[in-house]
Amino acid sequence: MTDIIRKDGRTPDQLRAVTIERGWSDQAEGSALISFGKTKVLCTASFTNGVPRWKSGSGKGWVTAEYAMLPRSTNDRMDRESVKGRIGGRTHEISRLIGRSLRAVVDMKALGENTIVIDCDVLQADGGTRTAAITGAYVALADAIEWAREKKFIGQRSQPLLDTVSAVSVGIIDGDPMLDLAYVEDVRAETDMNVVVTGRGLFVEVQGTAEGAPFDRSELNSLLDLALLGTTELAVLQNAVLAAGAAGE
Amino acid sequence: MTDIIRKDGRTPDQLRAVTIERGWSDQAEGSALISFGKTKVLCTASFTNGVPRWKSGSGKGWVTAEYAMLPRSTNDRMDRESVKGRIGGRTHEISRLIGRSLRAVVDMKALGENTIVIDCDVLQADGGTRTAAITGAYVALADAIEWAREKKFIGQRSQPLLDTVSAVSVGIIDGDPMLDLAYVEDVRAETDMNVVVTGRGLFVEVQGTAEGAPFDRSELNSLLDLALLGTTELAVLQNAVLAAGAAGE
Amino acid sequence: MTDIIRKDGRTPDQLRAVTIERGWSDQAEGSALISFGKTKVLCTASFTNGVPRWKSGSGKGWVTAEYAMLPRSTNDRMDRESVKGRIGGRTHEISRLIGRSLRAVVDMKALGENTIVIDCDVLQADGGTRTAAITGAYVALADAIEWAREKKFIGQRSQPLLDTVSAVSVGIIDGDPMLDLAYVEDVRAETDMNVVVTGRGLFVEVQGTAEGAPFDRSELNSLLDLALLGTTELAVLQNAVLAAGAAGE
Amino acid sequence: MTDIIRKDGRTPDQLRAVTIERGWSDQAEGSALISFGKTKVLCTASFTNGVPRWKSGSGKGWVTAEYAMLPRSTNDRMDRESVKGRIGGRTHEISRLIGRSLRAVVDMKALGENTIVIDCDVLQADGGTRTAAITGAYVALADAIEWAREKKFIGQRSQPLLDTVSAVSVGIIDGDPMLDLAYVEDVRAETDMNVVVTGRGLFVEVQGTAEGAPFDRSELNSLLDLALLGTTELAVLQNAVLAAGAAGE
Amino acid sequence: MTDIIRKDGRTPDQLRAVTIERGWSDQAEGSALISFGKTKVLCTASFTNGVPRWKSGSGKGWVTAEYAMLPRSTNDRMDRESVKGRIGGRTHEISRLIGRSLRAVVDMKALGENTIVIDCDVLQADGGTRTAAITGAYVALADAIEWAREKKFIGQRSQPLLDTVSAVSVGIIDGDPMLDLAYVEDVRAETDMNVVVTGRGLFVEVQGTAEGAPFDRSELNSLLDLALLGTTELAVLQNAVLAAGAAGE
Amino acid sequence: MTDIIRKDGRTPDQLRAVTIERGWSDQAEGSALISFGKTKVLCTASFTNGVPRWKSGSGKGWVTAEYAMLPRSTNDRMDRESVKGRIGGRTHEISRLIGRSLRAVVDMKALGENTIVIDCDVLQADGGTRTAAITGAYVALADAIEWAREKKFIGQRSQPLLDTVSAVSVGIIDGDPMLDLAYVEDVRAETDMNVVVTGRGLFVEVQGTAEGAPFDRSELNSLLDLALLGTTELAVLQNAVLAAGAAGE
Repeated sequence: MTDIIRKDGRTPDQLRAVTIERGWSDQAEGSALISFGKTKVLCTASFTNGVPRWKSGSGKGWVTAEYAMLPRSTNDRMDRESVKGRIGGRTHEISRLIGRSLRAVVDMKALGENTIVIDCDVLQADGGTRTAAITGAYVALADAIEWAREKKFIGQRSQPLLDTVSAVSVGIIDGDPMLDLAYVEDVRAETDMNVVVTGRGLFVEVQGTAEGAPFDRSELNSLLDLALLGTTELAVLQNAVLAAGAAGE
Repeated sequence: MTDIIRKDGRTPDQLRAVTIERGWSDQAEGSALISFGKTKVLCTASFTNGVPRWKSGSGKGWVTAEYAMLPRSTNDRMDRESVKGRIGGRTHEISRLIGRSLRAVVDMKALGENTIVIDCDVLQADGGTRTAAITGAYVALADAIEWAREKKFIGQRSQPLLDTVSAVSVGIIDGDPMLDLAYVEDVRAETDMNVVVTGRGLFVEVQGTAEGAPFDRSELNSLLDLALLGTTELAVLQNAVLAAGAAGE
Repeated sequence: MTDIIRKDGRTPDQLRAVTIERGWSDQAEGSALISFGKTKVLCTASFTNGVPRWKSGSGKGWVTAEYAMLPRSTNDRMDRESVKGRIGGRTHEISRLIGRSLRAVVDMKALGENTIVIDCDVLQADGGTRTAAITGAYVALADAIEWAREKKFIGQRSQPLLDTVSAVSVGIIDGDPMLDLAYVEDVRAETDMNVVVTGRGLFVEVQGTAEGAPFDRSELNSLLDLALLGTTELAVLQNAVLAAGAAGE
Repeated sequence: MTDIIRKDGRTPDQLRAVTIERGWSDQAEGSALISFGKTKVLCTASFTNGVPRWKSGSGKGWVTAEYAMLPRSTNDRMDRESVKGRIGGRTHEISRLIGRSLRAVVDMKALGENTIVIDCDVLQADGGTRTAAITGAYVALADAIEWAREKKFIGQRSQPLLDTVSAVSVGIIDGDPMLDLAYVEDVRAETDMNVVVTGRGLFVEVQGTAEGAPFDRSELNSLLDLALLGTTELAVLQNAVLAAGAAGE
Repeated sequence: MTDIIRKDGRTPDQLRAVTIERGWSDQAEGSALISFGKTKVLCTASFTNGVPRWKSGSGKGWVTAEYAMLPRSTNDRMDRESVKGRIGGRTHEISRLIGRSLRAVVDMKALGENTIVIDCDVLQADGGTRTAAITGAYVALADAIEWAREKKFIGQRSQPLLDTVSAVSVGIIDGDPMLDLAYVEDVRAETDMNVVVTGRGLFVEVQGTAEGAPFDRSELNSLLDLALLGTTELAVLQNAVLAAGAAGE
Repeated sequence: MTDIIRKDGRTPDQLRAVTIERGWSDQAEGSALISFGKTKVLCTASFTNGVPRWKSGSGKGWVTAEYAMLPRSTNDRMDRESVKGRIGGRTHEISRLIGRSLRAVVDMKALGENTIVIDCDVLQADGGTRTAAITGAYVALADAIEWAREKKFIGQRSQPLLDTVSAVSVGIIDGDPMLDLAYVEDVRAETDMNVVVTGRGLFVEVQGTAEGAPFDRSELNSLLDLALLGTTELAVLQNAVLAAGAAGE
C-alpha cells in the first residue's frame, strides 16, 4: 500500500497539512480557523447562559452546531441557502453530525444549564469539510468552556469535557484505501467513510457509504484502521494547540 | 447472549414479525405496505419516462426517494412539515439514505432514461422506520421495474436490478447488542446503528452513532454480525414475496 | 332515473362500498381507516389537555382538522406540500371544511378546555376524499371522546357529541343527478356538490359548484334529495360501527 | 318578516348602498372600486396575451383571481401575508371562489389564448367582502374584454362573456333570514351563505355553512329566495354601470 | 432652468398636484389617501397599547411602518409578495425608510409605551411612491396621536410630535435637476435622490444614487436646493390639511 | 477638530488600519479579504459566461452582489438567515447597495454578455461592514475581469472598468464629524452617512440618516468633506494593491 503516491504527493495513509489557528475571532468565546490542505473552516463557539425550553430545569447543558458553506467556497458558485429560503438536506445532515460528535465528549451535568452553539462556516472547500469542522470545533468548544470557567459560569472543578474528539474521511479509490480525501479523490471514491473518534480511540460515529459498488467486511476493516491512524494524529495536534497557551494570547 | 429475553419476548438476535403486503396501492406502478412489528410504512414506486434535466442525454435513469411520517404515526402528535413550511433535518437525512440505498442495486444504464420516485410514508412508528422503509421500498421498486418491462419502457433483456437490498437497525442496550430495535429499546440504546446490506451480503451503508458512551471496535463487530443476520432473513422474505406472483394478482 | 347503470355497476342513488376500520391506529386516541370504494382515508383523533391561547379561560374546548394526500395516492404523483414549502388552496379549504363539520356536532362547553386534532390522510384517492374524511373523522372523534371520558379528562355525564355527522358528494352528469361520485365521474360532472349532514338530517354545509353550465333550483333540489339519502345510510353505518364495542377490542 | 328593522335601518331583504366606480385605475385594462356599504374592494383586471403552459395550444383562454385584504382594512390590524411568508386558508378559498365564479360566465374558446388576472384588494372590510369582490370583478372583467376587443386581441364578433355574474351573502340571525350581512350581523349569524348567481338567475356557487345550529331544508330555501332577490338587483346595477359609456370616459 | 417645460407641463421646480384625503378609513385611528399626480397611496396608522418585548419597560413607545404595492398598481402586473412567499429587497428598504423618517419626529418618551404601525399601500404607482407614502403617513400618524390623546392613552400635555416630516424625489434628467419625478422621468434620470425633511427644514434622510454617471458636489447641491423647495411646500399642505378640523368631521 | 482623540486613538479624520489580502481564495476568479480595523470581509467575484434572461441578447453584461454576515461575526450571535428561511431587510438593502456601487464603474457593453457575482461575507464585524465590502469587492471585481481577459472571455482591448470605487462611513458624534466609525462609535452617532465615491472623486451613493436629531446643511457638508478624504485614501490603497502583481502571485 505504501508504494502508492497520490496526485498531491501523499502516501495513502497520510493526512494533508493540518493547521489550527486558535482564537481567530475577536468576538466568539472560542474559535479556530482550521485547514485540511486547501479546505478552510472557521469554527466559533458561542456560550450563553440558559438552555432551550425543553431542557430547562434539568440541570443539564446543551451543545448544538450549524454548518454552512460560503457560496464561493467551492469551484462553482452555489446559491445561498438564505436566498433559496430553505436549508438543503446535506447541510442539515452535517450540522446534526457535528452536534452529535461534540455532545459525545461533553458531560452535560458538568456544563450546567448553559448552551454552546458551534458555527462551522466553510470558507474554502476541497473535500473533508465536515471532518475538518468537527476537528476545529472541538478546539473552539474547549476554549469556550475555559472562558466560561474563568467567568465562573461553570464551576472551577467542573470538567465538562470528557475527552477530545476529531474526525477524518477515508475512502477506497481504485481498490485502495486512502486517508483524508481531497475533493478530486472524493468524487472518484467507490466507498466513502467519515469516522469520528475520541482521544481514547473510541468511535462516536461511523458513516460508510458505497458510492459505487457495495463493500465487504475486510474493506470496512481497512478503512477503520486508516481512520484511527488519522484521528490519533489529529488528537495530538488538538492537544498541542490547546496546550500552547490561552486563546488570544 | 441468547439467554436474554426482551420486553416483547424476543431474543437479542430476533427480528420483529415482518410482513410485506405487496401491491397495496391501486395507483402506483409498484407498492408495498411493510410492517416491522407495529411499525408500518407504505412504500410506493412511481415510474415516469424521462430524467431530471441534469441527467438528460446521459442514457441513464434515476431513482430517488422521499420519506415522511404521518403526524399521528407517533405517540405524541407531531406538526406536519407542510404546515411548518420546511422539511426537518431528520426527514432529509432519511430520504437521502433511502435513495442512496436503492441506487446501489440499480444499473442506471439498464434502467434507461426513466425515473423512479419512491415514497415511503410512515403510517405508524415504533422504531426502525427507515430500515422498514428501505426493505419495503425495494419490493415496490422491483414491481415498478417489472411493470415498466411489461409496458416496454425498458427492454425485455434489461436487468436494472443488480441485487436485492434490505436494512435493519442494531444497538447496544445495557451492554448487550440487540437486533431490530423497537421504539422503547431505541431510546435506551447507548449505540445505535443502521445497516443497509445487499442480497449478496455486501454493505451499502453503515451508520453507527454513539448515543451514550462511545463504542469500541469489538462492539462494532458484534453489531455488524447481528445486522447481517437480520438482513439475510429480510432478503429471504423479499424474494419470497416477489416470487409469489405478480403484484395485484 | 333508476334505469341508469353507472360504469361501476351502481345505480344513480347508490353509494360505493363503504367500510370503516375502527381503531386502526395503535397510537391515536381515536382512529378509523375509511373506504368509499377505492378511496381510502386514515383518520386519527389526537386528544390533548388545554386549548389554544385564544380560547384559554373560556371553559370551552376546541376541535380542528388537517387534511393531506400522500403523493402517490393519485394516479399521477403529486409533489409533497412539505417539499414545496407551502400548503395549497385546496388542502386549506378541505381542512377547514372538515374542522367546521365536526365542530357543528360538538358541545364545546361539555368538551371542557381540551383540544382534539383530527388528521385525515388520504392513502388512496378515487373521488370523494373530503366526504370520506368527514365521515371517518366522526368515528375517530367519537372514540377520542370516549377515551377521554375513561381517562376522566371529561366528566362522566358530559355529552360533548350532540349528533353524528357524515358527508357525501353528489353531482350532475349528462344531466342526471348521481350520488357519491368516483373520480372518473367527478371530472365529467357539470355540477358538483358536497353536503355535510347531521344524524338528524340537518345541514351543516352545502357546497355546490357549477363546473360546467350553471344549475337551476330544481337541479339543486334533486341533488339535495340524493345527498340526504346517502348521508342517512352513512349515519346508520357510523352508528353500527361505534356500537360494535370499544375501539381496539 | 318585513316588520324587522336592522341596526343600520335596513329591512331583512334590503341590500346596503352599493356603488361601483368603474375605471378607477389608470393602469389596469379593466377596473372597478365597489362598495357594499362600508365594504370597499378595488377590483382590477389585467389582460395578457398567452396562457399558462398547461393550457398552451388548447385555443382556450384563462381567467384567474387573487383576493387579499389590506392589513388595516379591518377593525384590528392583521399581519400581512407577505410578512408571514404564507397565504392563509381563507385567502386561498376566496381567491379560488372568485376565479371559479368568473370562469362560469366566460366562453374560453371565444377568449382565445389570452389570460385575464383579476385582483380584488379589500381596502375596507365590513362583511361581504367576497361577494362585493365577485360583483365588482365582473365589471372589471367586462371592461378588460372590451379593451382587448378594441386592441384586436380578440375578434370583433367573439362574445367571451356568456352572462353577467354577481354574488351576495345571506344568513339567519335570531331565526330570521337576512340579506347582505354587515360585519356585526355576520358574527351573530347562525347560518351563513354565499350565493353566486348569473344574470339569468342560475346558480354558480351555493356555499352554506352552519356557524351555530345546523339548518333545515326550509331555512335553506328561504335563504336562496333572499339571495336571488339580491343578485337580481346587483345584475341590474352592473348592467347600468357598464351601459353608462366606456370606462374612463 | 425655469425655461424648461416637462412632458406633463410642469417647470423643473414644480411639484405634481398633491392632494391629501384625511380620514379616508373608517377603521384606522389615523389615515390619509395621498396623491402625487397619478401616484396614490393609502396610509393608515394603527395605534395599540404596549410595545414590542425588546422595548418593554423602557417607558418609550415605538413607531414602525410597512410599505407594499397592489399587484396592478403598476403598468405591468407584478406578482404578489404574499404569493411569492417572500418580501423583496425594495419593499424592505422602503418600509424601513418610512419607519425611520417618522421616528425622527416622534418623542418616544412622550408617546409612552404605545405602538403605532403605519401601513402605506400603493393603490396606483407613477413614481415617487415612497415620498408620497412618507408625506401621507405623517398625516395619518398625527391623527392617530390625536385619537390616542382623546382616548387618554397619552397624556393631555404630551407632545409626541416634535415636528412635521415630508419627502420628495429629485433627479437629474439630461443634465437638468428636476423636482418630484413621475415614472417616465424616473427611468430616464441619471441621478435620483430621495430627501426627507422636517418642517424646520432639517434633513432626516438623504439618499442619492447615480443611476447613470456619478455626480459631483455641485449637482448634489442643486438637488438638495430643489428638494427643500418641495418639502417646504408639502409641509404647508400637511399643516393646512391637519388644521382643517378633526379627521372624519 | 484635530484636537479630539477617539477611544482607539484615532483623530476624527483618520481611517482605521485598512488591509487588503488580494487573491485570498483559491476558487474564485477574483477575491480579497479586506480589514477595516477589526471588521473583516471576504469578497469573492465569480465570473460566468452569459447573463440573466432579461439581459439576454442585449450585448451587455451584468454585475450583482450578495452580502451576508456569519452568525458569530458580531458580539452576540445572530440567527442564520438560512435557518430563519428569509433574508432580512438590512441584508437586502446592503446587497443592493454593493451591486449598484460596482455597476456604477462598469461599462456593461465592454463586459459583454458575461455575469459577475460578488459575494461579500462578513467574517468579523466592528462597524463599516458595508463600506469595507464595497472597497474590497472592487479589488475582487478587478481581478475577475483581468482573469476573464486572460481567458479571452472579454476582448484584449475592452476596458470594462471605468474607474475605481470605494466607500466609507462618516457620522456625527457629540456634535463632531468623524470618519470611518467603529461599532461603538456607530451606535452613538446622531447622524450616520455612507458615501460611495469613484477614484475621480464623484459620488455614486450618498446615504445619510439622522439616527438622533435631524441634521442641517452645514453638517451634511462637513460629513461629505470627511468622506471624500477617506475614499481618496482608500482609492490609493486599492490601486497599490492591484499594482502589486497578479493575484495569487
